[in-house]
Amino acid sequence: MHILGEIKKRGKMVDEAIERLLPIVQPEELYQASRYLVDAGGKRLRPAMLILAAEAVGGDVQKVLPAAVSIELIHNFTLIHDDIMDQDELRRGSPTVHVKWGLPAAILAGDTLYAKAFEIIAHVDAPSKIVARCLDVLSQTCADICEGQWMDMELEKRSSVSEDEYMEMVQKKTGILFAASAMIGSLLGGATDETADALWQAEKTIGVGFQIRDDVLGLISSEERLGKTRGSDLMEGKKTLIMIHALKKGVKLDALGRDASAEEIDATVQQLRDAGSIDYAMEQAFALVEQGKSKLDVLPDSRTKELLIELADYMVTRTY
Amino acid sequence: MHILGEIKKRGKMVDEAIERLLPIVQPEELYQASRYLVDAGGKRLRPAMLILAAEAVGGDVQKVLPAAVSIELIHNFTLIHDDIMDQDELRRGSPTVHVKWGLPAAILAGDTLYAKAFEIIAHVDAPSKIVARCLDVLSQTCADICEGQWMDMELEKRSSVSEDEYMEMVQKKTGILFAASAMIGSLLGGATDETADALWQAEKTIGVGFQIRDDVLGLISSEERLGKTRGSDLMEGKKTLIMIHALKKGVKLDALGRDASAEEIDATVQQLRDAGSIDYAMEQAFALVEQGKSKLDVLPDSRTKELLIELADYMVTRTY
Repeated sequence: MHILGEIKKRGKMVDEAIERLLPIVQPEELYQASRYLVDAGGKRLRPAMLILAAEAVGGDVQKVLPAAVSIELIHNFTLIHDDIMDQDELRRGSPTVHVKWGLPAAILAGDTLYAKAFEIIAHVDAPSKIVARCLDVLSQTCADICEGQWMDMELEKRSSVSEDEYMEMVQKKTGILFAASAMIGSLLGGATDETADALWQAEKTIGVGFQIRDDVLGLISSEERLGKTRGSDLMEGKKTLIMIHALKKGVKLDALGRDASAEEIDATVQQLRDAGSIDYAMEQAFALVEQGKSKLDVLPDSRTKELLIELADYMVTRTY
Repeated sequence: MHILGEIKKRGKMVDEAIERLLPIVQPEELYQASRYLVDAGGKRLRPAMLILAAEAVGGDVQKVLPAAVSIELIHNFTLIHDDIMDQDELRRGSPTVHVKWGLPAAILAGDTLYAKAFEIIAHVDAPSKIVARCLDVLSQTCADICEGQWMDMELEKRSSVSEDEYMEMVQKKTGILFAASAMIGSLLGGATDETADALWQAEKTIGVGFQIRDDVLGLISSEERLGKTRGSDLMEGKKTLIMIHALKKGVKLDALGRDASAEEIDATVQQLRDAGSIDYAMEQAFALVEQGKSKLDVLPDSRTKELLIELADYMVTRTY
């Protein structure tokens, strides 16, 4: 798919900017721990979206790069802390930060990325009014992500969860950071408030589609492709849209626990398939992406607008 | 001491502003966990300093209150995460957040305060240029605090630490947040860059004095007055100025471990007294405060300037 090359091109620019904006300084080990997950890979979808949103309104890619780095660091900060909370041991094909560096280092590595993300975006080359606005959007986004992660952990403990509750949780946990990426990129690119708001809405919705696809891939893709433990949602009793549908269909879904075997996971995934829950979730993801894409109409026609549409499609069709 | 009343007066305004700016909203338990330590007390020294710095340059107290709240939330965020890392179980006379709410909740409560601190200061009523500057100062401060906490944990593991290393660690871990309080308060109050920088320098130095006093109190004060475990630095093998002096004097100071008895702690404190280490540390603290206070000369003479001087003295003479 053509869009992959376009994401990679921008991802490479982001990687170079990370090297420049988050160098390994003293105390070295703290910055090594902070960079460890960042350097382990990742698709750089959020910074690529930020850059595309800037380009789509005629912005200068070089000028928005620090903001793109900032978004990627926030994403990595949430992953490091979430992996501690969810006791996940594998991420991007490597041991998670707390497994590799220990709990105190992992907490602090996350906190450092958070601080650096704000420091870096505070230095972006834009009028003060826009910089202050971006900082405001980013801080509200971070508070929303915390709320989303909290809800995610709460829903785990409950036997019954509604689709609305799932949607609210996922909007906060995942959708909002895509929304912020598009909004910040467009604001820095010179967009009107109306356009920036429309992009925020569009990518929040598309981001939920992305998360549903992520939930599906976490069940059906191979561990090697995923880079993380397959079926961990089943182990933890996460209430994804798939599980909510299956529970409604009468499938019994107790948390399998951390030591579930591949066979147990396969058997449960087969039950989910049989109940039509995986197909159902993907239908919802596709519908959300269509809904989100329609809001991109606010943008003038351009090659970049097409890329944003292709990116949205990729987010729910990707295989890893 | 008169200054205590002045701190309390401003602390009360900060508490009211916290109620308004960080209400318990959904998900309720997350915000309860986030507010738990904030509401457990604390002297509100940092926000009081921020307010005094604003007043000293003719600023409006009401207008800087959100920034004062923001500083207090950052302080509480660092305490929550530090208590996890240091495995401390008592703070402000109550169980620490991770003991009371569990590890995932404590990580997330800290992250939420972190996000809210930035969100609240982003909404402060000031010109965008000043707001962006304050956010920049705050983010750099947070990165420094992370570096300081990392160094603190690293020095624990070492058998020999220099005074310079201690000073650098404590400047970052503690001094810098007092410095940022004074700088942000004065910038929002309308200070010139020169004045704001001088206040930053002054309070960074005074803040180190504060930490040395804190180290001393952690050994000699009662657990009831401290609100935290007495002698925990001795249990963890922390390298405070007291310990560095004692080690130089040949006192044997292996970490006593988490289950050290009151008698073991008393005996070690007596050794530190006998070696003159506690007196030595306090002499350094007094000298730092004198050095810091001299930098307050940049301020015009006023009752508020006198209060800032009294506050500095209080910071190294307080008994809890």
